[in-house]
Amino acid sequence: MTDNPVASRTPLSLLGTGAMGTALARAWLAAGHPVTVWNRTPARAAHLAAEGAVVAASAAGAVAANRLVVLCLLDDASVGDALDGVDLSGRDLVNLTTGTPAQGRARAAWAQARGARFLDAGIMAVPPMIGDARSGAYVLYSGSSGLFEEHGAALAVPAGTRYVGSDPGFAALHDVALLSAMSGMFAGVLHAFALIRREDIAPKDFAPLLVSWLGAMAPAAHKAAEQLGSGDYGKDVVSNLAMQVAGNATLLATAEEQGVSPELLTPYMALLERWLAEGHGDEDTTGAVELLDVRRTERGPA
Amino acid sequence: MTDNPVASRTPLSLLGTGAMGTALARAWLAAGHPVTVWNRTPARAAHLAAEGAVVAASAAGAVAANRLVVLCLLDDASVGDALDGVDLSGRDLVNLTTGTPAQGRARAAWAQARGARFLDAGIMAVPPMIGDARSGAYVLYSGSSGLFEEHGAALAVPAGTRYVGSDPGFAALHDVALLSAMSGMFAGVLHAFALIRREDIAPKDFAPLLVSWLGAMAPAAHKAAEQLGSGDYGKDVVSNLAMQVAGNATLLATAEEQGVSPELLTPYMALLERWLAEGHGDEDTTGAVELLDVRRTERGPA
Repeated sequence: MTDNPVASRTPLSLLGTGAMGTALARAWLAAGHPVTVWNRTPARAAHLAAEGAVVAASAAGAVAANRLVVLCLLDDASVGDALDGVDLSGRDLVNLTTGTPAQGRARAAWAQARGARFLDAGIMAVPPMIGDARSGAYVLYSGSSGLFEEHGAALAVPAGTRYVGSDPGFAALHDVALLSAMSGMFAGVLHAFALIRREDIAPKDFAPLLVSWLGAMAPAAHKAAEQLGSGDYGKDVVSNLAMQVAGNATLLATAEEQGVSPELLTPYMALLERWLAEGHGDEDTTGAVELLDVRRTERGPA
Repeated sequence: MTDNPVASRTPLSLLGTGAMGTALARAWLAAGHPVTVWNRTPARAAHLAAEGAVVAASAAGAVAANRLVVLCLLDDASVGDALDGVDLSGRDLVNLTTGTPAQGRARAAWAQARGARFLDAGIMAVPPMIGDARSGAYVLYSGSSGLFEEHGAALAVPAGTRYVGSDPGFAALHDVALLSAMSGMFAGVLHAFALIRREDIAPKDFAPLLVSWLGAMAPAAHKAAEQLGSGDYGKDVVSNLAMQVAGNATLLATAEEQGVSPELLTPYMALLERWLAEGHGDEDTTGAVELLDVRRTERGPA
């Protein structure tokens, strides 16, 4: 795999050998990194021994084995459970466990209080993409920049790396924001397929149009970002809020004609209508983001 | 603009000179097509006279002037009003007016009964994209294939052309399906920006991640199309429904932490939970499309 001696590769410990942990361990092993693994259910780590990993008998043993410790557990509570009472002083913890921004921040403070450096992470990939440089997989990191700089090369082995700030909550926040946007897109895609599925239109003939259309329209987010940065939602508007709300009637009428429930579309339409009612018809739709602010809703419009 | 004599360009009439009609007229005029225009409010067509268009005094006059008649009016009712009592025999009507599939079908039958060929259309662009070959703008067409073949070159002047079938409802159906999917994506994008907007994250720094992520994830629609084609939602599943429903808890918890209303995400989450409750946890999420079928909901699950 490599001309360099294995000894030059950073040794690391990995806690958690589920589908993602296993994919990560394999990528590091393939690149020549000595890997110590631990799993709460030992049988689920055993398969990695045959691939060159050292299997630790306890989480404490895995942590003691290497300075760089990667956590890929079920959830934040599992991290607390696995490392309860374990000496973390001098360790560099990289937390790939899925969590919220607040969990990332609290876990960073917890690690720091135990003498460890801490980097939180959000994996923008599914296990089959790990270790495949062409897959586009990457991991968002936030927290200790010193840790990220020191171990950047090792972290870059399973997937691309993007450091998004020293705030340990930012990796999870970026992760969740991207997943949330994707969830909206997939809801729209599901509705689109529902509209055509009773017609003589092959889904595989429609999909290329759909994929290229979404790819062409996604960059509208750049303009939204500019508007959010300036707070000016009325500049260079092409299709204003009033026109979009009017156009939604055709989307609803078509759903009804096709026998498709509009439930995945109506909340966004309702949000735009509320923003229109507040007098923003000549602006872009971006300003409706303010209606999603729970505190604004609680205190009512200005 | 061109070496060919103007006389070789198909002359055409355009009814409706709003923002889109004006952009279309300008594209045809720039390419050397003789264009006759009409608008219900004559003052709104007058500006095109200075650019070389003939302004007709009535819709009937505009229709009589040319065999190829393009309609770009407010809505389907406006088409019926404008052409009420007008002799359409021998005309080739291209209807760029926004409508539903049923309106396209009914309007096609109406035109045919009056001796006209009919092509319905859905414009996948905003006016500034018209006449700009690099913009990626295109128009979906369905209905008379003879009309489309005969006038394909003229129709290709303002934007790309895609013929999607002889069913005159298909252009509107494809159009609305694409717009519906985009609506879902924009809802997700709005939620994503709402999550980060109270943090020290510049929207313009987040937007590139968002755009590339959505572009990378949109091709999942190809796999969904395959599953819809085969009816097998359980093949080659990477992240199954149960895992996605579990992951949604992190999305909701993060929204709550950030003070963001989850209203744009919850209907899709609820749909996936209902599909999970019906025993599809090991499958992909695609099968949840069945829950959007109003007839299924009315008769209850199988």
